[in-house]
Order: sequence, then C-alpha cells, then structure tokens
Amino acid sequence: MTGENRLIQLLQERYQTRHPLLNKGIGDDAAVLHPRHADEYWLVATDMLLENIDFRRKWISAGCLGYKSLAVNLSDLAAMGARPRFFTVSLALPAGISERWILGFYDGLTELSNRAGAHIIGGDFSLSKSGISISITVLGESLNRKVLYRSGGRAGDLLYVTGTLGQAAAGLRLLETGRRQGRSRSRTSAIQAHRRPEPRCEAGLWLAQSGLIRCMMDLSDGLSMDLPRLCAASAVGAEIYAADLPVFEDAAHWGCDPVDLALNGGEDFELLFAVPDPRAGLLERSYPERFPRITRIGRLTRDPGKVWIHRPGRRPSRLAEQGYDHFRRIGPGRKAD
Amino acid sequence: MTGENRLIQLLQERYQTRHPLLNKGIGDDAAVLHPRHADEYWLVATDMLLENIDFRRKWISAGCLGYKSLAVNLSDLAAMGARPRFFTVSLALPAGISERWILGFYDGLTELSNRAGAHIIGGDFSLSKSGISISITVLGESLNRKVLYRSGGRAGDLLYVTGTLGQAAAGLRLLETGRRQGRSRSRTSAIQAHRRPEPRCEAGLWLAQSGLIRCMMDLSDGLSMDLPRLCAASAVGAEIYAADLPVFEDAAHWGCDPVDLALNGGEDFELLFAVPDPRAGLLERSYPERFPRITRIGRLTRDPGKVWIHRPGRRPSRLAEQGYDHFRRIGPGRKAD
Repeated sequence: MTGENRLIQLLQERYQTRHPLLNKGIGDDAAVLHPRHADEYWLVATDMLLENIDFRRKWISAGCLGYKSLAVNLSDLAAMGARPRFFTVSLALPAGISERWILGFYDGLTELSNRAGAHIIGGDFSLSKSGISISITVLGESLNRKVLYRSGGRAGDLLYVTGTLGQAAAGLRLLETGRRQGRSRSRTSAIQAHRRPEPRCEAGLWLAQSGLIRCMMDLSDGLSMDLPRLCAASAVGAEIYAADLPVFEDAAHWGCDPVDLALNGGEDFELLFAVPDPRAGLLERSYPERFPRITRIGRLTRDPGKVWIHRPGRRPSRLAEQGYDHFRRIGPGRKAD
Repeated sequence: MTGENRLIQLLQERYQTRHPLLNKGIGDDAAVLHPRHADEYWLVATDMLLENIDFRRKWISAGCLGYKSLAVNLSDLAAMGARPRFFTVSLALPAGISERWILGFYDGLTELSNRAGAHIIGGDFSLSKSGISISITVLGESLNRKVLYRSGGRAGDLLYVTGTLGQAAAGLRLLETGRRQGRSRSRTSAIQAHRRPEPRCEAGLWLAQSGLIRCMMDLSDGLSMDLPRLCAASAVGAEIYAADLPVFEDAAHWGCDPVDLALNGGEDFELLFAVPDPRAGLLERSYPERFPRITRIGRLTRDPGKVWIHRPGRRPSRLAEQGYDHFRRIGPGRKAD
C-alpha cells in the first residue's frame, strides 16, 4: 500500500466515528452530514495546494491559481453529486506578495465560484516563511438526498469516465520542459487543462440524480491510483482496456505516452463511475450532450483489490499504482523527529 | 488600519454575499448557516498554523501541537456559543516527518476532540518543501439557535473577559529566551498555556444560552487587536481599565510587563463579551463557579472605533493596536509579483 493511502487507512481505523448526524466520515471524496431535520444532506471536503509541490508561481497566474484551488475542491463535491454552496479559504503568504496578487487570486476564485453558485463565507490569513499555501474547505448540499459514494460498486458493473484523461498532465510536461506558451491549439488546451481544470459539477449532479449509477469518485491522482481506491471502497476488483481510454492523443507530439499520462498523470478532475450493465444503454442514451462526453473503459470484477489492464497485443497485466503519492516513502519504520 | 484587518475588509466589501441559507458570512469568528428546515444553525470556522510562524517544532511536541491546532479552532466556535461537532484536518509535512510524529499529532488532537465532543470527518495530506502547515476547519451546531455575534454591542454595555490574559504570551517569552522547562509552578503553567490552550467551549455555550450577553468574540491576537474588531462590528467605542485586567502577574518575575502581555501578547483564547449594565449583577451571580472566572474590564462607549485605556496615575490614552498582525506591512502601494 502506498504512503498516503496507508496514512488515510490508519486514520480511518483509529478515528472512524459513528455519530447520529454523520452519514459518512473519513474515506470518501467528501464527508456527508445530516443536520437534524434538514431537508438535505450537507457535504464537506477539503484540499490543500502548496507552492513548489502543487504549483510553481512562474507557471500560473494568481487568477488561474485561485480558479484551480477552488476547482479541485469543487471536484470532490461533483464526485458525490452535490451542489456547491459555501467555502472557506485559508491563505499563507510570503512577505513579498502584493495586495494586487492577492486580489487577483480572489478574482480567479470568484470567477469559478460565481458560475458554480458557491459563496465564500470565511477563511484565515497567515504570513508564510516559505511559499504560498492554500487550503480550501467546501460545503455542498445534496439534491433529494441523492449522493454517490465510492462504495456501492458491484462485480459486473461497467466503468465509465467523463472527459479526457492525461490532458492536464500533458500540459504540465510542456511547462516542465520550458514550453510555457502553447504554439498550437492542442498545446494551449493542455496547458489550460493544467492551469484551469473544470470541475464536473453539473455532470456529477446529473449522474447522481439519474439513479443509474452505483458509485462515483473524482480522478485527482491518476486512474492507476484512484481506481484501486474505488475498488477498495466497493470491495471489488476491476479490469480496464487501454485501447478504450479517452486519452489525450496530441501529447504524443511532444514526446509523451498518452496512455501513461491517462493512467498516471493525475490532476484530471474527471469523474469515474460504475453503472450496472443492464442500465448502461439507458445511461448512454439519456446522458446530456452538453456535458463532457462519457467513455466506457472497463468493468468491476469479483477479485477484491485486483486491478488489471488489457493492452492491445499484450497479455493482461496488473495495473501498477504509479500516480501521484505525496508520501510514497513514509512508513512505520521511520524514526521519530 | 492594520494589514490583516485591511485584507479582511477588502474581501468583505468585494465578496460579502447574501444567500437564503447564510445568516453570517465573512467577518465574525465563524460563519453561520441555516440548512433548510434544520432545527439548528451550523457554524463554520477555519484556522491555520504554520511552522516558524505560529510554532517551532523544538518548543512543542507533536501531541501538544495537535491539541493546540484544534483548540484555536474550537475557540472560534466557543466565541459564538456553538457546540463543536465535526472537523477536517489538512496537513502539509516535510519529507523528514515520521509516522510516529503524525500519529502523535492526531493523538493530541483527539484528546481534545473527544473531550469537546468533536469528530474528525476528513482532511488532506500533502508533502511540504518547507515546514509543517496545518489547516483545520471546524463545524459547530447551535443550541436553540442562540448564537452570539461580534455585532450587537451597545454603548453603555459592560465588557468582560474570561480567564487570565497574557499567560500564553508569558510562556512564549520563556521559550524564546531559552527557558524551556518551567522551574516553578507559574512558569510551568505559562508554558502550558502557550502549548495547550483551553478553548472556552462550555463557558461560551453557557453565555450564549444565558440570554444575558449582547455580543462575544474570542481573543486570539491580543486585546488591543481584538477589542477594536468587536467595536467595529458593533459600531461603538470602548474604554478599558488596565488596573482591572486579569493579568498574569507572575510574568513580572521573568522581566515581562503583565499589562503589556495582556494587551498585546495574543493567543489567550479567552472570551471577550459585552453585557447590558442592568443585567451584569445577575450574570455575575449566575455564572457557574466551575468555569474560568469572568472579570469586568471596562465598557462600550458612543464613539465608534475609539478605544481608550485608563492606567493608574496617567491620563486616559488611545489603545494602540500592537497585537499580532501577519500582514502589518502589506498595503495597496506594494508592487505586484
């Protein structure tokens, strides 16, 4: 098990709590509360972005960074099918940051929040002795109490994703290799996908309301990291077909393997969900065209925890968890500070 | 106006929102929501702690740091009179941190959360290229929809604080001057006040339920910073009496001015509240003895924004805002990055 998953599992085992107002605590994209006698469930998710880990200031404007910081949080609500309502923003800033930068950050952030119907309700400011640190907590509201968890998938269900996988990672590779400006449409769109990801709020809400879906999550660390999490929560395995993945083909033009990016690149912020086989046809016919397309990429299987990938001309192999893990190296054997 | 206050005011002006489910947004200790048809209001507050800004690893154990990180957040709920319910924890950690340190942090945190009746429901982990960064968001629930805001104070109301002011700051001075171990009871208690502040949850809840209080907030940046915030929210002024402040006298033994620490030290996490004069007697008689004592320190006045301090043998003077401000130096004139 990887470092970050291990930490989360440890916390889940130690601190998983039961509470009459809590439907779901640690271990999904968002926690789910039910305030006493409230019409709806309320969802809470939180995500942090750190300079030189999640972003570099020279590669992203203050406005895009504000936009992206909220987007990655709203993506967690989208993954549960919840409507964004409120959020808090905590910002730690080095002494050299200008008021103009700060207001630019909030302008980018509110560009997205206005569109998503979310409202800022508080936050915290701190000086930072090092880089910028951003921590956002979002609150969402269910619609008709229909929310989708990672659990609930069953063997035989078909696996789908929204949008394109690996595009944001392809954009990041361009920036990393010094090609900051997109000189072609595909480069521009890749860099845009990295800088201003679009949370799939409307598609997520529609999918939850449809009643056709069994489980859902968002893809933040890459399919190879996230699919095993869905499988673990649903106590199933999975098999996926590389040839069916909606990869970002143009990345091959700048020396990347589109399938590798789709599996391991991360930061897609697309939705991954499972549909019972008999309902798949109805889903495909009724899914609105205005939303990002959905693509069938495989199915859930009976073997808990085992995720296989089929590649053309090769024997099926176990999918290696090669997506992003902050704590790959942290283990129980490390010494205390 | 100081840097941090200025930033918050700018955000309030730009992004203060009205929403049918929102009773109070930016500008108080916590935001106040009312989920549709819920019995109670729900409150949201968030606070960040950064290494080498808010704490130094050599001066505080992982357990105490966990305890304190939650305490400063619960203090915001106490300030509104809300019951702690749930919280999320985001942690950014340098590569050298051990699993033992991380679990120690959570043990300290849950020591307090168990006592306060709060439950961890999620969070985020990230690698940090610099120091530890902790961001916690707490959710609280009102009781009988009685919450206390910073606004609501009126000229003539009497000002009170809970507990002792300046004790945590006195402890910090000991640590800063290399006196890490308390060699006397007062040193030990001062260091303890810095490392493990006690949020005044029960007192806050009692005060809100009493119906005797007009407005309340918690003291985090020092009375000289926080009292003007209460005055601004209530559109009043104030006068306080240095001789009446519940200062930590023993700090004089290690070369500190107890009154200066009480005014400007910060991190007291005591409650500041205003009571209509005719109700003060009843409050003092009915306030439970088991809670930290309350002390009358002055009154609210008609002069909006003007805060005066009376010191024995001197003419009254305006109280200078000398508490903690992260962004004293950020202003509109600074260049963009």
